[in-house]
Amino acid sequence: MINQLTIFGVGLIGGSLALALKKAGYCRRIVGCSRRESHLQQAVELGAIDSYTLDAGEAAEGADVVFLAVPLGAMKSILSDIDGHLSAEAIVTDAGSSKASVVEAAREVFGTIPSRFVPAHPIAGREKSGVTAAVADLYVDHKVILTPVENTSAAAINTVAAMWEATGAKIATLGVEQHDRVLAATSHLPHVLAYALVDTVSRTGYVDEIFQFAAGGFRDFSRIASSDPTMWRDICIENRAAILENLDHFQSELTKVRELIHQSDEAKLFDLFDHAKSIRDAKIANRD
Amino acid sequence: MINQLTIFGVGLIGGSLALALKKAGYCRRIVGCSRRESHLQQAVELGAIDSYTLDAGEAAEGADVVFLAVPLGAMKSILSDIDGHLSAEAIVTDAGSSKASVVEAAREVFGTIPSRFVPAHPIAGREKSGVTAAVADLYVDHKVILTPVENTSAAAINTVAAMWEATGAKIATLGVEQHDRVLAATSHLPHVLAYALVDTVSRTGYVDEIFQFAAGGFRDFSRIASSDPTMWRDICIENRAAILENLDHFQSELTKVRELIHQSDEAKLFDLFDHAKSIRDAKIANRD
Repeated sequence: MINQLTIFGVGLIGGSLALALKKAGYCRRIVGCSRRESHLQQAVELGAIDSYTLDAGEAAEGADVVFLAVPLGAMKSILSDIDGHLSAEAIVTDAGSSKASVVEAAREVFGTIPSRFVPAHPIAGREKSGVTAAVADLYVDHKVILTPVENTSAAAINTVAAMWEATGAKIATLGVEQHDRVLAATSHLPHVLAYALVDTVSRTGYVDEIFQFAAGGFRDFSRIASSDPTMWRDICIENRAAILENLDHFQSELTKVRELIHQSDEAKLFDLFDHAKSIRDAKIANRD
Repeated sequence: MINQLTIFGVGLIGGSLALALKKAGYCRRIVGCSRRESHLQQAVELGAIDSYTLDAGEAAEGADVVFLAVPLGAMKSILSDIDGHLSAEAIVTDAGSSKASVVEAAREVFGTIPSRFVPAHPIAGREKSGVTAAVADLYVDHKVILTPVENTSAAAINTVAAMWEATGAKIATLGVEQHDRVLAATSHLPHVLAYALVDTVSRTGYVDEIFQFAAGGFRDFSRIASSDPTMWRDICIENRAAILENLDHFQSELTKVRELIHQSDEAKLFDLFDHAKSIRDAKIANRD
């Protein structure tokens, strides 16, 4: 049970956490803070938050838990804004899609990584964004990855884990660097590919036919290209190293496949496709 | 109403057509032909076909409509096998995912493209293959693209269109080359990318974590990598030119995106992602 939760960025992620914790009766009071008053008013009307302020320092005061659900590019300035306004017992956590950059931002702002800062990443989302897209069950059966560092307090980890469990989420733990490499492969690279694919298709001169005859493959494949461009711009920059590493591996692979197609190498094309199918079937098919 | 329909390749595509036409009461008799007797026995047990033969010439005799639902690489040899066994009124159609190569195969076998050959492509599928995956409603509300050539008979087109409409499918018409370019972009390239992505990921050394934390993006994106490798090997070879053209455009685009990420070019990354999102939202979002 949390007395006061303060949420920075009451959009899809922050709003859905608020609605889930309201539904679970897990918070006495939820305070919202963002740059846009109209969004905060909407969040009040939707019953996600109890009150709001546009002043970050004021929002942090009295909070037992502070949750940062803003684009990665805004994390550092908010940490700066709340520095000096947190109570000694306040726990800070976030929802950033890349962890090294947020941990580094905390180190820069506080001089050291606070033991009460618990870096975290809920693996959930929708293509729609904003508090109007928030739903109380967004996190049910979804994973939330905590990436504590060496000096993160066990009590703080437990508080954040319990908060997420109250939403129906399942807790997992990874190292900061491991998280960033795994997410670069499972989420960041696919988003970059989807954006690039739709962009490529849009230049073909027969874009209407392409969308008209888009079968399941293209539809599934391109769905994530409808995601929030600001969020994905920030992720590409903040997790740049891991994304570039994965992108380079992917481009080498694609060049290899291109050569096999160019040479009509039936045997090697079959082997490559068959290998990919067997990996995916073994690892994921049962969970589709 | 068709008196005798002969289906070559009674797997997912051929079997689903058979089940749909049975359900609609549209065929008096459905004959199956394939290389594997066990598959044909299964098709009889599942009620998809009435009888079968392993002899292609015999299968073609007496057929009003012959439907080729075999991998692209097998089209030409079946056309050769049935040459001389077709009645003067028999209509031949197919389900090949690329059309130029099938049309060319028909030209080579028959000396000219027969007016009673209607090249076609039902835009439907599942990751599972084989007649055990066949379902009567596979084609309901799906598009079937007909790609008739200049001398294709209008009566033959009407017969094939009516057969597909009996399954609940919707008919569309494209030129052969236009079909191959559009499908290269909407279906063939995404399949190549999905196979390449899973193959890349399988080499990372943390493949278990990747599948464990695979969010919706990766799952949607990689689903088509569970497709039949034989079918996709054949498509890559038979529609090679259009696939390579699309692949080259995609790789140029990806190289451009890579450079923007490498340079942390916030403005251009945002513009590119925002452009892709707006295109997809405008063209497809309402149909998700």
